[in-house]
Amino acid sequence: MTNPTATALAYWAAAEARDWAAFGALLADDVVYELPQTRERIRGKAAYLQFNVEYPGDWHLTVHRVVGEHRHAATWCHFTTDGEPAEALSFFDLDEAGLIASITDFWPEAYEPPPGREHLVERY
Amino acid sequence: MTNPTATALAYWAAAEARDWAAFGALLADDVVYELPQTRERIRGKAAYLQFNVEYPGDWHLTVHRVVGEHRHAATWCHFTTDGEPAEALSFFDLDEAGLIASITDFWPEAYEPPPGREHLVERY
Repeated sequence: MTNPTATALAYWAAAEARDWAAFGALLADDVVYELPQTRERIRGKAAYLQFNVEYPGDWHLTVHRVVGEHRHAATWCHFTTDGEPAEALSFFDLDEAGLIASITDFWPEAYEPPPGREHLVERY
Repeated sequence: MTNPTATALAYWAAAEARDWAAFGALLADDVVYELPQTRERIRGKAAYLQFNVEYPGDWHLTVHRVVGEHRHAATWCHFTTDGEPAEALSFFDLDEAGLIASITDFWPEAYEPPPGREHLVERY
């Protein structure tokens, strides 16, 4: 049975705990990880686990939003890496067994707003 | 009754159709729109409608993923603006009446991957 919200929360909890056994147990063997911003793709549980184990920096996360439905979930996490904040948006697809078959991460960066809408917006 | 998936899909369909009456009918009067990347915030249905009506460029969208649960939804849309592609990640919160009370958009941009993970990734 699939529970995408619980699966996504367990994924992030395992990542934060560096509990790679629990993390790997959530992944399909043929999991595909994609980063559209860099057009990078990692195929397979072994390589994706390695990517996470090797990921540099003292990173920590909290889940700010999680939404799950059918075989899909989306999360919005607050990250800090060596004290630097970042937001991560992730989309998950589960297979029939409830394992994570695909993950797509976005790491949007700050930018200056274009001119012309100052009459409608405030800055925070 | 709230149906966050249907509401999010109706929101994007109305935006693509420039059907501002239908678009506005989905919004709470005190809707809050936030863009964390620029730290911009728009308060209220009138200002947020105006922001969308005035938004420059010939923009079009298709919804690539939608996930809804309880009073929350998340979408991932493919946009083109004057032919330029972009991805939009949006998180919606609905109020008790099922109207959209908050929208948070992310517009991640392409960047070059950091070195050190070429042994695990392919580019696409």
